[in-house]
Amino acid sequence: MTRRHTSHFTVEFGDCDPAQIVFYPNFFRWMDAASLRFFRAAGVPPWREFEAQSGIIGTPLVDASARFLRPATYGDLLDIDTAIEEWRGKSFVMSHVIRRGEDVLVEGREIRVFAKRHPTDPARIQAVSPPASVRAWCGA
Amino acid sequence: MTRRHTSHFTVEFGDCDPAQIVFYPNFFRWMDAASLRFFRAAGVPPWREFEAQSGIIGTPLVDASARFLRPATYGDLLDIDTAIEEWRGKSFVMSHVIRRGEDVLVEGREIRVFAKRHPTDPARIQAVSPPASVRAWCGA
Amino acid sequence: MTRRHTSHFTVEFGDCDPAQIVFYPNFFRWMDAASLRFFRAAGVPPWREFEAQSGIIGTPLVDASARFLRPATYGDLLDIDTAIEEWRGKSFVMSHVIRRGEDVLVEGREIRVFAKRHPTDPARIQAVSPPASVRAWCGA
Amino acid sequence: MTRRHTSHFTVEFGDCDPAQIVFYPNFFRWMDAASLRFFRAAGVPPWREFEAQSGIIGTPLVDASARFLRPATYGDLLDIDTAIEEWRGKSFVMSHVIRRGEDVLVEGREIRVFAKRHPTDPARIQAVSPPASVRAWCGA
Repeated sequence: MTRRHTSHFTVEFGDCDPAQIVFYPNFFRWMDAASLRFFRAAGVPPWREFEAQSGIIGTPLVDASARFLRPATYGDLLDIDTAIEEWRGKSFVMSHVIRRGEDVLVEGREIRVFAKRHPTDPARIQAVSPPASVRAWCGA
Repeated sequence: MTRRHTSHFTVEFGDCDPAQIVFYPNFFRWMDAASLRFFRAAGVPPWREFEAQSGIIGTPLVDASARFLRPATYGDLLDIDTAIEEWRGKSFVMSHVIRRGEDVLVEGREIRVFAKRHPTDPARIQAVSPPASVRAWCGA
Repeated sequence: MTRRHTSHFTVEFGDCDPAQIVFYPNFFRWMDAASLRFFRAAGVPPWREFEAQSGIIGTPLVDASARFLRPATYGDLLDIDTAIEEWRGKSFVMSHVIRRGEDVLVEGREIRVFAKRHPTDPARIQAVSPPASVRAWCGA
Repeated sequence: MTRRHTSHFTVEFGDCDPAQIVFYPNFFRWMDAASLRFFRAAGVPPWREFEAQSGIIGTPLVDASARFLRPATYGDLLDIDTAIEEWRGKSFVMSHVIRRGEDVLVEGREIRVFAKRHPTDPARIQAVSPPASVRAWCGA
């Protein structure tokens, strides 16, 4: 059974550009936040605590994409429905549907890996297999 | 002949997240800036001036995607090579290759349309055909 | 009687920097959002509607300051208590107290003016007296 | 002799808000970047290297303020003149003058401390005295 989680965000004035609509990288910012809220809702501890236990510092991106169907502007309330669509060895695919009420505004997808810090160079990171505990938390 | 333009950015401390690497939506922020610099380098005026002439307020996104090959951290100097890959009726495809020296970090693609403000609702926008002047400026 | 409004924000992973704490300009981003929520809660319409009625495009800043008492990190829930402290001719002073539960993290202050777009140069703005309707909405 | 450093930034479309001018927290973002460039120009290594030597993770803020004299919009080129105005025990005062050519747009001030991570709680930080090496690098 696939776990799903819905996160809520408000579009602020400063999230919009001179065309009066959301500056599009902010949709990826909200997807990233929705990914973390998905993991937190599934019972995964904050990365800074999880790092102490597991060495894992987060889930950096391998690929991200979005289709923009309708614009949004400040004051809009966004709901993001997040799920893990697929586990693929070291990577996994998250889907995000961003809605304003019933209207779908953006369909997004992130491919992520679990990562540890490189043992000798802290500016580098290494992909690792998803911990069994996380897969269990996520119902996979 | 396809016009190309290379833009330059510096990764700042505040562009990086607790994993010490660039927070990924910032790569889309730089691609958006590279798109605008491409048009400016091709001779297209700033949108606020162009709007007065043409009603066009910018080139909002239909689709955006990126493959993340290598992380970056603060102090890194980024070069972004931008081109218009394809003109498709009302939309067009921009490609962005983000490099640090010879290393390709990110391969990005944006599908955009030229847009005017909706005549009765300023919070809405409408896709229009690319102006002939812009296509000529861009060598298409 | 001074109107007060409390806004709520969540610190996201991407709001934090490599020191694991909130990148400080984000506190000003939240103060700006809290200012707008204050006006919306007081009954002032969104700026894009208010501009059609009044020509006013928003409340740009004359001065902003903050004292940072305690850091915050991702997952923290922030409450911002906002009030207008003083009306001064064309400008007014907003205070923001940013709390995490009972702990005060930041004490901020913004001095703002109401502004219209310059009649001949849309890239310039002009300060105007606060509209009586807004002062009435705000209980001043 | 006080060391000074001038940093250069370009205002991007996405740095501006629906009022067509820079969303003000971005001026603090540029001041933060200018602070780090000041230290780098003075010979201080990147924080991630300096942390390995000294435990110091950066220079978090105690206080930040800015007076906004003129707005800026996208395409504007900004110069920021940065200096350390004063050393005060554990804290120090940086001044930033943000110019567009000869026009001063913003006068900013940051009060910062050097910080180490708290020994038992990585989400907390501790102020420490400025290292003698840094004061020497900065000509203080």
